[in-house]
Amino acid sequence: MADTLNFPGGPVDAGLIDDLVAASRILAKHGVLDAWGHVSIRHPANPERYLLSRARAPALVSADDIMEFDLDSNPIDQRDRRMFVERFIHGQAYKARADVNAVVHSHSPTVIPFSVTGEPLKALSHIASFLVDEPPVWEIRDVGITQGLLVTNNEQGGSLARTLGNKPVALMRGHGNVVVAPDIRRVVHRALYTEINAQQLVTALSFKRPITFIAPDEAQDPKRLDDSWEVWKAEVMG
Amino acid sequence: MADTLNFPGGPVDAGLIDDLVAASRILAKHGVLDAWGHVSIRHPANPERYLLSRARAPALVSADDIMEFDLDSNPIDQRDRRMFVERFIHGQAYKARADVNAVVHSHSPTVIPFSVTGEPLKALSHIASFLVDEPPVWEIRDVGITQGLLVTNNEQGGSLARTLGNKPVALMRGHGNVVVAPDIRRVVHRALYTEINAQQLVTALSFKRPITFIAPDEAQDPKRLDDSWEVWKAEVMG
Amino acid sequence: MADTLNFPGGPVDAGLIDDLVAASRILAKHGVLDAWGHVSIRHPANPERYLLSRARAPALVSADDIMEFDLDSNPIDQRDRRMFVERFIHGQAYKARADVNAVVHSHSPTVIPFSVTGEPLKALSHIASFLVDEPPVWEIRDVGITQGLLVTNNEQGGSLARTLGNKPVALMRGHGNVVVAPDIRRVVHRALYTEINAQQLVTALSFKRPITFIAPDEAQDPKRLDDSWEVWKAEVMG
Amino acid sequence: MADTLNFPGGPVDAGLIDDLVAASRILAKHGVLDAWGHVSIRHPANPERYLLSRARAPALVSADDIMEFDLDSNPIDQRDRRMFVERFIHGQAYKARADVNAVVHSHSPTVIPFSVTGEPLKALSHIASFLVDEPPVWEIRDVGITQGLLVTNNEQGGSLARTLGNKPVALMRGHGNVVVAPDIRRVVHRALYTEINAQQLVTALSFKRPITFIAPDEAQDPKRLDDSWEVWKAEVMG
Repeated sequence: MADTLNFPGGPVDAGLIDDLVAASRILAKHGVLDAWGHVSIRHPANPERYLLSRARAPALVSADDIMEFDLDSNPIDQRDRRMFVERFIHGQAYKARADVNAVVHSHSPTVIPFSVTGEPLKALSHIASFLVDEPPVWEIRDVGITQGLLVTNNEQGGSLARTLGNKPVALMRGHGNVVVAPDIRRVVHRALYTEINAQQLVTALSFKRPITFIAPDEAQDPKRLDDSWEVWKAEVMG
Repeated sequence: MADTLNFPGGPVDAGLIDDLVAASRILAKHGVLDAWGHVSIRHPANPERYLLSRARAPALVSADDIMEFDLDSNPIDQRDRRMFVERFIHGQAYKARADVNAVVHSHSPTVIPFSVTGEPLKALSHIASFLVDEPPVWEIRDVGITQGLLVTNNEQGGSLARTLGNKPVALMRGHGNVVVAPDIRRVVHRALYTEINAQQLVTALSFKRPITFIAPDEAQDPKRLDDSWEVWKAEVMG
Repeated sequence: MADTLNFPGGPVDAGLIDDLVAASRILAKHGVLDAWGHVSIRHPANPERYLLSRARAPALVSADDIMEFDLDSNPIDQRDRRMFVERFIHGQAYKARADVNAVVHSHSPTVIPFSVTGEPLKALSHIASFLVDEPPVWEIRDVGITQGLLVTNNEQGGSLARTLGNKPVALMRGHGNVVVAPDIRRVVHRALYTEINAQQLVTALSFKRPITFIAPDEAQDPKRLDDSWEVWKAEVMG
Repeated sequence: MADTLNFPGGPVDAGLIDDLVAASRILAKHGVLDAWGHVSIRHPANPERYLLSRARAPALVSADDIMEFDLDSNPIDQRDRRMFVERFIHGQAYKARADVNAVVHSHSPTVIPFSVTGEPLKALSHIASFLVDEPPVWEIRDVGITQGLLVTNNEQGGSLARTLGNKPVALMRGHGNVVVAPDIRRVVHRALYTEINAQQLVTALSFKRPITFIAPDEAQDPKRLDDSWEVWKAEVMG
């Protein structure tokens, strides 16, 4: 494998692109991404650019599919490749948050019921500590009716980014969620454990007893994610 | 692969038959179809005919199994092949609905509980927008007692088609559902997301809070289904 | 494959033994049987004998493992093979019921909650019509305390058979269930759909609405089980 | 395979190490262990030592990864290998309990909701008889705030061991559980059936009816675990 891959914004470490491809497949394998949804990274050498697959199912993404966009989500070198209509979610998140270098948009199945009921999706497990504050729920109708609830322009993407604020996760009513992190491995961790924490919370809520959530003074994101990454990547990258 | 396959009603594009076979296997792989259930298409050149597998488990269907029927569900060229006893569901749907070119009948597991309780199965996710109107529930007893609840004649099939009306989905009490669409890829999308939306609604209902369903003015079927079809088909067609 | 296999009670069609082996693996693959549980048939030529694997996990059973027992569950030709301690469930069912030629004992996971709560496990799906009458629940304490709740003698097996009566299924409190049928394919159908109907009933009950169960005048066991058998067997027999 | 493998505390039967590796992979395959969690055994010839993998995902553990520790969880022969930060769970359990020769720490997914609600996780199935007494729930805040809720020293490990007392299982609030047993096969059985019993109890609780739990006079751990071990190990050890 080449050491670097060429992109318009400058060469990118091939291992990072390999991680981006793996991220897409990992989240598909674990059921967080269905046949749609997408994972991106900020260009490591060029903060006004981000890298995202051309439009195709996450389980099938490979390095050749990765395209470069500016933060208004214009393609830098489109070459007839079809693009995700919802890429504005990514561009606006990078524009609003200098600390964000990786973004996931998914239809995470157990998160959607929280998005339509107002039931707070808070951390009950230490491994989902990033959910210690209740994630906000974005209502797309607040920026006007849109058929299909899709985020197809910068105005909608910007509204979503404002709802996200400085949080790691925002729910999108009747649609899914957006997850951000400082790097690709952490965004995969967060996207996966948002779904798993949701599943466990559904169960805990069924008991109709008070729930002890993770407290602010004990919340801590896992510091080291190499071990989980090793096994998740091994399962999808042959 | 030959460009076309010969059927009594005229040659059919081999790629379309390949999609019909894939549809059957996709819905089996995703748990919508159990060892029974079936998928059909209207003959593309002969609207008074439809194409449906001989009787066998959906996961095992191949192109050689596809038979042709008239809209009364008589076989055109039976050659001793055993037929699905419930094929009348298909024939009557095509007869009643000129806009329908593909039909699925399944025992979709999470849909059955809705069929026996009156709990409305409405869209809470944009990707299931086709469920924006509550699907009707068909009661087979209304056309007389039938042992086993099977749809085995045109009278029963016609009654079901009348309950379906102009909707995309009808539930069959204590039995399953029928899903219709303008083409084979869309009917697979609808059959699969009827099940997934049902699963998410079960979860949302468990919270005992008001649910925001997809509103009529924001509902929109996905326009393009090529990306999901690419990955679903790749998973079952070797 | 030989046409017949020799057993002390007389030769048995090799295809029937192959079906018995497949039954064990099918129910393991579908999660009805865990690492324990067992499937047996009555000897087709010798109604005072039955055929059951030596003690081993159901997923691993092969034709060489099948042993013969009399209806008091004594081995006819043990040859040092270890036996299931709960084989008395089978012998007593065959002794009590001339119409029964196949028996399954399992820890079917979603059936156990019904066995400890008194919640009736009735058919809500036509394909589980055999559950139209509420299955009885057997309480092993009624024949004396037994550590581990195992059925290890003919007295306990006979008590279970009396609770079963003329039904197809009996639940065993805190333990699992027993399923009987006229033949091996039907007992697999019944064991699998007892689990699936239980799963669907859990969901239907969660809605807290009245449930329309399958009515006695519309209940009918599927007449033909060849199609499901074809696919289930293909999935486990290589 | 060599008959024995060399460890600082003395040679260990290679079959026992093979079982330790299998235990890790079995619990990963069955979803009890996620990308973290760990399984250990006491050194069979040296009761002041225990054997545990270097830090890596349980599904990937092999014999070469096994390290030796003293009961204060100091490595005996570290050779730059990275260690699980939570190994103190194991050391303190061995120190407190002479009857314990195997320990599992997991984030068993359905157990966590019990840990944060006070809902008692008691045995409703005979195969989980070891849960006949309600497992205690350990509150890590009782030994001081810790960010991330991890057990990273002997004080915390000792506190957990005191909460465990003479029981087979203790829940860790918002984190997971610890399971102990006299040998490696039994600890796998207990860790797996703690999860399965939790799943079945969630279902039974949903009925809102009184539950008959396993009574003390009928509880009995399975005596023989060779059959389940045969199939579980075959599924993961190629």
